[in-house]
Amino acid sequence: MPTEQHIKTAMQSYIDCFNRDDLEGILSLYAEDAVVEDPAGSEPVRGKAAIAEFYRNVVNGTTRICREEPIRGSHANSGAMAVHIETKVEGATIVIHVIEIMSFNDDGRIASMTAYWGKGDMETR
Amino acid sequence: MPTEQHIKTAMQSYIDCFNRDDLEGILSLYAEDAVVEDPAGSEPVRGKAAIAEFYRNVVNGTTRICREEPIRGSHANSGAMAVHIETKVEGATIVIHVIEIMSFNDDGRIASMTAYWGKGDMETR
Repeated sequence: MPTEQHIKTAMQSYIDCFNRDDLEGILSLYAEDAVVEDPAGSEPVRGKAAIAEFYRNVVNGTTRICREEPIRGSHANSGAMAVHIETKVEGATIVIHVIEIMSFNDDGRIASMTAYWGKGDMETR
Repeated sequence: MPTEQHIKTAMQSYIDCFNRDDLEGILSLYAEDAVVEDPAGSEPVRGKAAIAEFYRNVVNGTTRICREEPIRGSHANSGAMAVHIETKVEGATIVIHVIEIMSFNDDGRIASMTAYWGKGDMETR
């Protein structure tokens, strides 16, 4: 099982890769058979090929993840973080308040990512 | 399925009940067959009697929950919130940074609560 520190470092790397539009960097953090559910309650995206397609749509040069407060660990193989995601669309900035839960496999790669946000968590600034 | 607003209101009520040491108020938010996993990765506490016992130990007149940023919803029956929990112990204040995920049943009661925090998320102030 990966250490709490490994999990927190990997989750921070995820943010850092995202914010430099490093699609390959993001994908390298994921396990081959990972599952992404973003938003929570939507149909999960399964497997690295489908996850790559998912991220191609959101890693677009204008979307940024801003972490709020420290990344949390667990007493097992998971971590959690509160973030807001900012995207520029036609002169406006859309902000989505999100909490992301990630579980990790024994190789230290992301096995699942679930992003909690609802329609009420979006605002335009 | 409960609305996003119901979920967020119930999660705020949970904090409010906790901070006035209202054990009955907390328990009224839970379903009879709810499951609490606090911290994530520990043995889950199952059913309202066991959950009551769990909260009797933490609702103690000196432990307070401070919410960070807005409560998040989902596209289904869950919500998420980042908090820190402060407890006074022998003159010191112990702070634990936590992210809590709650799922709700069709009656709008908490079906599960999972609290993400690791040993590295505790500090003494």
